[in-house]
Amino acid sequence: MKITAQELAKFLNARLEGDRGAMISGISSPEDAGSEDLIYVEAAKHAGRAQASAARCIIVAEGMRLEKKTLLIAAQPKLAFARAAARLVEEPPIASGVHPTAVVDSSAKLSAGVGVGPYAVIEAGARIGAETQIGAFCFIARDAQIGESCRFFPRVSLYPRTRIGNRVRIHSGAVIGSDGFGYVLADGHYEKFPQAGIVQIEDDVEIGSNVTIDRGSLGTTRIGRGAKIDNLVHVGHNVQIGEHTIIAAQTGISGSCKIGDRVVIGGQAGFGEHCEVENGSVIGGQAGVLNGKTVRSSEIVWGTPARPLAKFKKQFAWFERLPELAERLRAIEQRIGK
Amino acid sequence: MKITAQELAKFLNARLEGDRGAMISGISSPEDAGSEDLIYVEAAKHAGRAQASAARCIIVAEGMRLEKKTLLIAAQPKLAFARAAARLVEEPPIASGVHPTAVVDSSAKLSAGVGVGPYAVIEAGARIGAETQIGAFCFIARDAQIGESCRFFPRVSLYPRTRIGNRVRIHSGAVIGSDGFGYVLADGHYEKFPQAGIVQIEDDVEIGSNVTIDRGSLGTTRIGRGAKIDNLVHVGHNVQIGEHTIIAAQTGISGSCKIGDRVVIGGQAGFGEHCEVENGSVIGGQAGVLNGKTVRSSEIVWGTPARPLAKFKKQFAWFERLPELAERLRAIEQRIGK
Amino acid sequence: MKITAQELAKFLNARLEGDRGAMISGISSPEDAGSEDLIYVEAAKHAGRAQASAARCIIVAEGMRLEKKTLLIAAQPKLAFARAAARLVEEPPIASGVHPTAVVDSSAKLSAGVGVGPYAVIEAGARIGAETQIGAFCFIARDAQIGESCRFFPRVSLYPRTRIGNRVRIHSGAVIGSDGFGYVLADGHYEKFPQAGIVQIEDDVEIGSNVTIDRGSLGTTRIGRGAKIDNLVHVGHNVQIGEHTIIAAQTGISGSCKIGDRVVIGGQAGFGEHCEVENGSVIGGQAGVLNGKTVRSSEIVWGTPARPLAKFKKQFAWFERLPELAERLRAIEQRIGK
Repeated sequence: MKITAQELAKFLNARLEGDRGAMISGISSPEDAGSEDLIYVEAAKHAGRAQASAARCIIVAEGMRLEKKTLLIAAQPKLAFARAAARLVEEPPIASGVHPTAVVDSSAKLSAGVGVGPYAVIEAGARIGAETQIGAFCFIARDAQIGESCRFFPRVSLYPRTRIGNRVRIHSGAVIGSDGFGYVLADGHYEKFPQAGIVQIEDDVEIGSNVTIDRGSLGTTRIGRGAKIDNLVHVGHNVQIGEHTIIAAQTGISGSCKIGDRVVIGGQAGFGEHCEVENGSVIGGQAGVLNGKTVRSSEIVWGTPARPLAKFKKQFAWFERLPELAERLRAIEQRIGK
Repeated sequence: MKITAQELAKFLNARLEGDRGAMISGISSPEDAGSEDLIYVEAAKHAGRAQASAARCIIVAEGMRLEKKTLLIAAQPKLAFARAAARLVEEPPIASGVHPTAVVDSSAKLSAGVGVGPYAVIEAGARIGAETQIGAFCFIARDAQIGESCRFFPRVSLYPRTRIGNRVRIHSGAVIGSDGFGYVLADGHYEKFPQAGIVQIEDDVEIGSNVTIDRGSLGTTRIGRGAKIDNLVHVGHNVQIGEHTIIAAQTGISGSCKIGDRVVIGGQAGFGEHCEVENGSVIGGQAGVLNGKTVRSSEIVWGTPARPLAKFKKQFAWFERLPELAERLRAIEQRIGK
Repeated sequence: MKITAQELAKFLNARLEGDRGAMISGISSPEDAGSEDLIYVEAAKHAGRAQASAARCIIVAEGMRLEKKTLLIAAQPKLAFARAAARLVEEPPIASGVHPTAVVDSSAKLSAGVGVGPYAVIEAGARIGAETQIGAFCFIARDAQIGESCRFFPRVSLYPRTRIGNRVRIHSGAVIGSDGFGYVLADGHYEKFPQAGIVQIEDDVEIGSNVTIDRGSLGTTRIGRGAKIDNLVHVGHNVQIGEHTIIAAQTGISGSCKIGDRVVIGGQAGFGEHCEVENGSVIGGQAGVLNGKTVRSSEIVWGTPARPLAKFKKQFAWFERLPELAERLRAIEQRIGK
């Protein structure tokens, strides 16, 4: 779509300096921009890139000066740019209408405006809310419930009875509701512990490609409102993830962990069973939180076993100086005789 | 299904105390249980949760007292509960009959009672044993062999000639038999080493969602009887995994490793090529076993590079005290002069 | 196919000693070989395995003697064997012709010899080059471009506008072009940063099963010519990977990293955002390169945080001797009084 700088400034609640009638029709990085593309610049060190760009309209922070540009001045330029992008760039539809090849059980309930792509399978008793789009090859098992305005990219699997909120986005290859990893040892072999619970995903969650989320063994695995989960993350049975928590790629969370609200988890982090990670804490990439451990609210932890970052840094600084410490120790021994 | 406490006690070989005619119709956690749900309690510290539960029938260990409950007394309550669950809770079928949209080559052989879901593809020469269920979107490549009573959840891929035993469960998104990662360097570019072997999976194995198992380059990648593999695990070409070995999520096993029987491997562990992990050993989560290393039978190892846990603990205890050691060293230097 | 030892020697530019007319019809490991299977032996320590093999024809290095065998003497026996295998072993086709169940948009352009498997979906505007084979359940989104002679195994997803070069192999379950992991924090919740770019994969790349590669947020995620990517690897938005770079399984590369040419990356390595890894460097398995760090050209790094291997080894040697160092320190203190 096309919009004038003035219309966009109004939409963003930004202050406008320059040509009110400048047309904006897309978004870009400074280097790839055409004259009608919107760009943004947040840090002063990137001002040169913005100045050199062909873009005429630029979202900037208060106090930034650029020559011969139309400026939209916003408190948080990156956030304003994200909102402008949501307005300017229309996502291609995943599915519109129900494709004739989709296999939809007659007892499934599809609300108004639901799209279902080719070869999707929707089993008995499933319910899908208004305006939700289900991509090709998605498998929506029996009695699954999906809210409104969700976007399932092609090839998402939901196991039976999975519950999904509104405006949830799930990327290709994600598996929601598979069996948890629970067995009981009996005379040298393993017997399966029941995996009879469900997964519940709340509103506004986004789930990356090839993510796996296991259902509760006896209860519910829950992903809180607004959580964002990157590609190839594993979430075990009965895990509870709080609201607005963010989990980077390839992190693994073992069964029955409780992760609080607004937690930030780096990539490839690992959590043993029954961990408790309190609200607002930060878990470093590749950190390993051992079974049953607690990470305190707002704490930043690092390493395996995970410990407070400040403590780790002190220890690690000496680890790096170990050859020197050993040499100093040797010198003392030499001096005083062994 | 419904069953009396007496019938269940007999099935479990458990001693009954209380109401023989109490009906049991499901399983639950203590907190979510209705009166007809079976629960179990193994550790004395959880007796309060069981006592407070609405469940009337409870599997307990010898010596545990609960008021006004019907007790099924078993040597291993969790195991008895798992077996009760297998009797009480019927898994929903993945597929019954061959769905009309399945593409089954005329030379494929399906035994009695095989179920094939919508849009599954079964290529030429494939053989599928009695009562096996193949979910939607499964791809069974040419000349693959699958045993009896297997359950393939929707969207499992088998590459050509893969062999699967009996009672094998494979979750959504798993890929069995893809090319191993083998190349030969030639003048600065890589040429493909042949990946012409197969994968063989023995009886009673369970494989999690989005697992990848590569076929042998020239021989066979083998997963032993009763092994359990969690989500997102990677198994490289020519790996041999022993019987009743258990591998937690996101572990990666490089080509030609030999993992013994009854090994326990934590999550996110990594194994370089040609490792040998002997029977009964335990590999900690996130541990890294270097190329060509051996882990001795019944050893517990930890860390990267992996070493015996007891050794790691001693080393790590001093790592944590490094700032103190450095300070003590400085004090000595000050005292005796540098 | 069948070929004489002489024909093969000529094809490989190898020197022949023995029976020129010996027939070769397959490849094998020494242990599994029949008389017509070709084997190779590179290291002298494996000569016994080759001598004991039933294989009559063996590729060997200059100077290796084997009794009663026909020898093809090559400078790089493993490379010669790989090339022989490519000639001797025909890969089964993934798809030949367009299967009647494939859903191909009328505006998609398929060149001569394209194969499309059952239930593949090819959306509007997609273009597929000559002799490319697209497996069952592949999803080729709108305006994707695929070059010539590619092999997509069943169940590969391409998001819109993805560009793939020639002779690219992609294994089952890989997802190319999903949204990058980018959000902007706004009053305690996350808003989506636009993910409007693409993925470009150059010629001769191979991508393992269940790999995920995100598209650029505003630009392009690029995988350079000849790169090889193992199973379950994650590549974030806007990452640039150079030519002939090799990445082992389960490695994760965060957004905007720049990886050079001929880099070798071990399994489960992790890269924070905006790393720069220069040409020819080697990253150890499980290494963690922190946000924004640079790995210098031809450097070998190890550990988390990643550092030069030689440095790590020195530090780690003393880490292992920490209990001894602590004891020596205690002894000095005792001797000189605290």
